[in-house]
Amino acid sequence: MAVFSSLTPVFVAVLCVIIGFLFKNSQRRQTRSKQERSDQTARPWVDEDLQDDTEIKEEEDDWLDTTEEENLPHIPYTPAQYSLMNLRRSVRFISPEPVPKEVIDNVIRTAGTAPSGAHTEPWTFVVVSDADVKHKIREIIEEEEEINYKQRMGDKWVHDLKKLRTNWVKEYLDVAPYLILVFKQTYGVLPSGKKKTHYYNEISVTISCGILLAALQNVGLVTVTTTPLNCGPQLRSLLQRPANEKLLMLLPVGYPASDAEVPDLKRKDLNDIMVTV
Amino acid sequence: MAVFSSLTPVFVAVLCVIIGFLFKNSQRRQTRSKQERSDQTARPWVDEDLQDDTEIKEEEDDWLDTTEEENLPHIPYTPAQYSLMNLRRSVRFISPEPVPKEVIDNVIRTAGTAPSGAHTEPWTFVVVSDADVKHKIREIIEEEEEINYKQRMGDKWVHDLKKLRTNWVKEYLDVAPYLILVFKQTYGVLPSGKKKTHYYNEISVTISCGILLAALQNVGLVTVTTTPLNCGPQLRSLLQRPANEKLLMLLPVGYPASDAEVPDLKRKDLNDIMVTV
Repeated sequence: MAVFSSLTPVFVAVLCVIIGFLFKNSQRRQTRSKQERSDQTARPWVDEDLQDDTEIKEEEDDWLDTTEEENLPHIPYTPAQYSLMNLRRSVRFISPEPVPKEVIDNVIRTAGTAPSGAHTEPWTFVVVSDADVKHKIREIIEEEEEINYKQRMGDKWVHDLKKLRTNWVKEYLDVAPYLILVFKQTYGVLPSGKKKTHYYNEISVTISCGILLAALQNVGLVTVTTTPLNCGPQLRSLLQRPANEKLLMLLPVGYPASDAEVPDLKRKDLNDIMVTV
Repeated sequence: MAVFSSLTPVFVAVLCVIIGFLFKNSQRRQTRSKQERSDQTARPWVDEDLQDDTEIKEEEDDWLDTTEEENLPHIPYTPAQYSLMNLRRSVRFISPEPVPKEVIDNVIRTAGTAPSGAHTEPWTFVVVSDADVKHKIREIIEEEEEINYKQRMGDKWVHDLKKLRTNWVKEYLDVAPYLILVFKQTYGVLPSGKKKTHYYNEISVTISCGILLAALQNVGLVTVTTTPLNCGPQLRSLLQRPANEKLLMLLPVGYPASDAEVPDLKRKDLNDIMVTV
């Protein structure tokens, strides 16, 4: 008891230090938010409710060099949707990488939401993935395209296309995982066998192609919009389409090849395409 | 010193209690996560790092009636982009509510990202917001449309449109904050004055209209795709468009009227519009 008595003041002092330390530790939150509140005017971005382990020390004021921030140049905000569509380009170098069929299904469904004359929905999307059929399509098209480039199109047209570096060789027809051949139904056939008028069928199907292109861009796929001259009847025959269907355009679809290139073309400014009244 | 000595055991005991309490308080986090870890098998969704004030008590196990969860029916996931576009309808009841011009600018910019024959970009978008001009447009169109409905279109066409409840009265032409008249440039004019060929100008401009419709849907605006028969030359004259421009379509644009209605039409299934080869 004597030893105990003489050590008591030391013991008590040590205990008080421990108590004080633990007390301060558990009270740190209240202390911090008081400090935060007093700092509110100096650092308005600090969330008053912020109660994680962030320690705001006075010396951290230096981490943000305020002169840099004041000198940052400002640029206009670019709207998202326009930016996405402005990245869309016709791409002729398509990867053979497979694309899940469900993705194509949804792109076609989206194209099918287009408006149409008297709601006739006069479109047929033929989606070809069979390698043999794709090759037959390529043979038909390259044969006609060679005649087009060498004879039918004329010097002027060939000249106007030079910047796009196109010719009659269409490798993407073999390589792309899907070829979408868009047919317009020039008239419908009712169950009775009678003809059904398809008002504005070409405009309707073409509008749906625009929506299809937007959908492809949204899912990260690429294509090039082609209208193979003089190939319609042969392709319709190959794909066994009925007499009322006429080929409108052919879209090879897939991911872009890793080394895909596009001509460095510019698009017109808004003021060159829009008139305000 | 005597008093002090006799109180010492009590004092020490009290101090130990205080220390113990504060220690437990500041150590609560480690305790909780130990408890959490032991609960991991029972409640696998509890984030091991979760260190907020959530108190997980044993009696809370009852809050989720597991039989309900097992019995929830499952439905297919609907893809976002298709769903958005599937909501697009032609809307003839447009609110007079103003639309910021910047929104229209971006929609037009987006339409201008369409592909075009030999990159000729053969489109002019005339955006009319002036009330007098809109009214003149309405007069021209209604006059021609009345003749269309009563004479030119014929009984069959009028009959086929009945389900859409349309006639020659086009109130939206006055009401909609903007009328977008889309002109195709049938040929271009070079600085030299020479003509520039616009290959596939009608298809190109129509594709851009499809992209325009998708853009409108993306920003929550509505329209109806109209091709006013026989009004082209008069409208071109009213809007002082040059001879190489021909009216392709007219789109009244705005927010939908609060009581807007659409015919309850259904769209074809994927299998009715797509053929897989």
